[in-house]
Amino acid sequence: MTIPTCNGFSAAGIAAGLKKDGLKDLGLICSGVPANVAGVFTNNLVKAAPVILDMERIKSGVCRALIANSGNANCCNGEQGMADAAAMSKFAADCLDVPDETVLVASTGVIGETMPIEKIGTAAPKLAESLKPEGFGDFAEAIMTTDTVPKIVTSQCDCGGKSFTVLGVAKGAGMIRPDMATMLCFVCSDIEASPEILKQALAESVDKSFNRITVDGDTSTNDTVLLMANGLSGVSADTSGIREKFQKTLDDVLVELAKMCVKDGEGATKLVEINVNGAASDSEAFKVADTTANSPLVKTALFGEDANWGRIMCAVGRAGIPVDHDKIDIFFDSVQMVRSGLGCGAEVEAEAAKVLKKPEFEIRIDLNAGDGTASVFTCDFSLDYVRINADYRS
Amino acid sequence: MTIPTCNGFSAAGIAAGLKKDGLKDLGLICSGVPANVAGVFTNNLVKAAPVILDMERIKSGVCRALIANSGNANCCNGEQGMADAAAMSKFAADCLDVPDETVLVASTGVIGETMPIEKIGTAAPKLAESLKPEGFGDFAEAIMTTDTVPKIVTSQCDCGGKSFTVLGVAKGAGMIRPDMATMLCFVCSDIEASPEILKQALAESVDKSFNRITVDGDTSTNDTVLLMANGLSGVSADTSGIREKFQKTLDDVLVELAKMCVKDGEGATKLVEINVNGAASDSEAFKVADTTANSPLVKTALFGEDANWGRIMCAVGRAGIPVDHDKIDIFFDSVQMVRSGLGCGAEVEAEAAKVLKKPEFEIRIDLNAGDGTASVFTCDFSLDYVRINADYRS
Repeated sequence: MTIPTCNGFSAAGIAAGLKKDGLKDLGLICSGVPANVAGVFTNNLVKAAPVILDMERIKSGVCRALIANSGNANCCNGEQGMADAAAMSKFAADCLDVPDETVLVASTGVIGETMPIEKIGTAAPKLAESLKPEGFGDFAEAIMTTDTVPKIVTSQCDCGGKSFTVLGVAKGAGMIRPDMATMLCFVCSDIEASPEILKQALAESVDKSFNRITVDGDTSTNDTVLLMANGLSGVSADTSGIREKFQKTLDDVLVELAKMCVKDGEGATKLVEINVNGAASDSEAFKVADTTANSPLVKTALFGEDANWGRIMCAVGRAGIPVDHDKIDIFFDSVQMVRSGLGCGAEVEAEAAKVLKKPEFEIRIDLNAGDGTASVFTCDFSLDYVRINADYRS
Repeated sequence: MTIPTCNGFSAAGIAAGLKKDGLKDLGLICSGVPANVAGVFTNNLVKAAPVILDMERIKSGVCRALIANSGNANCCNGEQGMADAAAMSKFAADCLDVPDETVLVASTGVIGETMPIEKIGTAAPKLAESLKPEGFGDFAEAIMTTDTVPKIVTSQCDCGGKSFTVLGVAKGAGMIRPDMATMLCFVCSDIEASPEILKQALAESVDKSFNRITVDGDTSTNDTVLLMANGLSGVSADTSGIREKFQKTLDDVLVELAKMCVKDGEGATKLVEINVNGAASDSEAFKVADTTANSPLVKTALFGEDANWGRIMCAVGRAGIPVDHDKIDIFFDSVQMVRSGLGCGAEVEAEAAKVLKKPEFEIRIDLNAGDGTASVFTCDFSLDYVRINADYRS
């Protein structure tokens, strides 16, 4: 496995004492030259302080660095929270000798606890000294909460002699559903692209990736996806054909990261793609996929490796769109469980049981009523999900 | 404890071999004289065969009997399912010597398995012979699925010398959320009331009771609430003052049954009332209460007895209504955890911890933005919920 890097970017991750277990909890990404930047933020009306700060700062379209911590969400902390988010950026800016307002901030962890800001101030110089091109692994560890593995994806795209790189780091685990999850994702690229192009490309990619995953249906206060591009590759996204290549590369990186987030969802043992087709529209298909992907009864059946298709029919029926239940077909991978609304009998159960034992598979729901399609990635709902979330603050 | 009875009604419950464990699974309620009837049924577009049958038959406003089974939902069984539901009613009608179309049917259990209708035919004569005024306890057992206790509530209302009774039996457990749950509820009364009065009274009571509870956010295909009134008390709901007394008595019985359903929710260890006030409207208050009551992260925190109010703030923020987060107050019983959007500090945690250890308590969310109020009863999300639902069919 090659060590992930992206031309002109350096990263670091250290332990600053925010996490009780002494693990890495403070990370920094820095671009050696000013980078253009775009971001997508949570739709939750209760927004963490760093989200509010970033939404304002990102309007300039330029950034030099990003400081992120785990162990504390810096949310619901009022004026003090806003001051602490600004202080975090200043610690980083001072160490890097760049203007405050070019440093973005992200936090993840428990909501409503005061940020131990002095710990971040103390750790900042060491953090900045640790910056190195190969530091993304350390950074990825520093933003983990209940994640069990760090998540980094890189992709290089050749463009006739030159090439550009897209490197993404994410954290996921819980509070994850379509419409952005409790997740943080930071993407670096050496492509040359205006903030406007980055914004459009990011919105499109997020819609195909992080807006199509769910772990528990909860949308968090801290969700942030940032895309920074420093132009050092000499490949410009303004050039004909390159824009599409950039979009494709960005899509690939974000979809892969999104899938990694579901797969590493709290307590998850399975990654399941819910594909709905034959709906009257894509948005109706999405409602069916989303309702099915979030149903606790469907998700516990997946954990139990039980081909309980009745719960899927039930979820389809309450998705809030008109459905003709006797047209519905349901497949587990290639095994048809339901034909025209009726079960395919006990003889397919053994085949279905084999599919359910797989770590990754597809549930396909065909409404046979139109051309609308949608897909959502989900995971099962396990005993460990409950264990993790019953104990989270302790 | 007195044995619940209602003038002119008899009931029975026996084991017909539908449940794998040999427990009671077939029940019958019969009114000695034709009773007026009203019903409320699931909003799920995928409806079980008995629901479809009842929705048609109930239009007459008259019924003599109700046959109900557990162990099989008779849903997604197509034409065969409809024929089986009709056959169930005919078995009962023949034994009772009443017209087919005056017998209603209800089923609960696994979706998509063929009804073992011959078992019901074989058991029907014994079932009818077992009818007795004191048989509601047996009936209540016969409709249990993952319920751990039978659920019966009776209330008698004095009306100047005369009195009427309302007796309700319910099953709940899983697939329970506002907008009717996987629940069956059958209410008998000896009041004299037209089908139209019964319909209005039932709709009002259901809105205050079964539409205000959630276990897991799933709405089932089989939800049915039936209200039968045979008039034998000689008290008429048309009389001034009595109508209100009847409504109040019916409300009390259904609210109590609804709370019993949540308390006995799959794996539940706590009954929690989510009260929202200060919303711009009642419907906005309901959205906040519903989102909070269904949040897996809130529910797992309740199980963990963790006063994690940040998850409540997060749920409020994604409820889909405009909120001013720095006006929000949150209380656990009388312990204020959040004031104007900010946590009340570590010193209240010990008090909150005491509340969370109670089997029943209230979470009050005040949005301080208007007069809208709503309440929803919910339970915690426990390891046993997952265990029960991962294994349900096996």
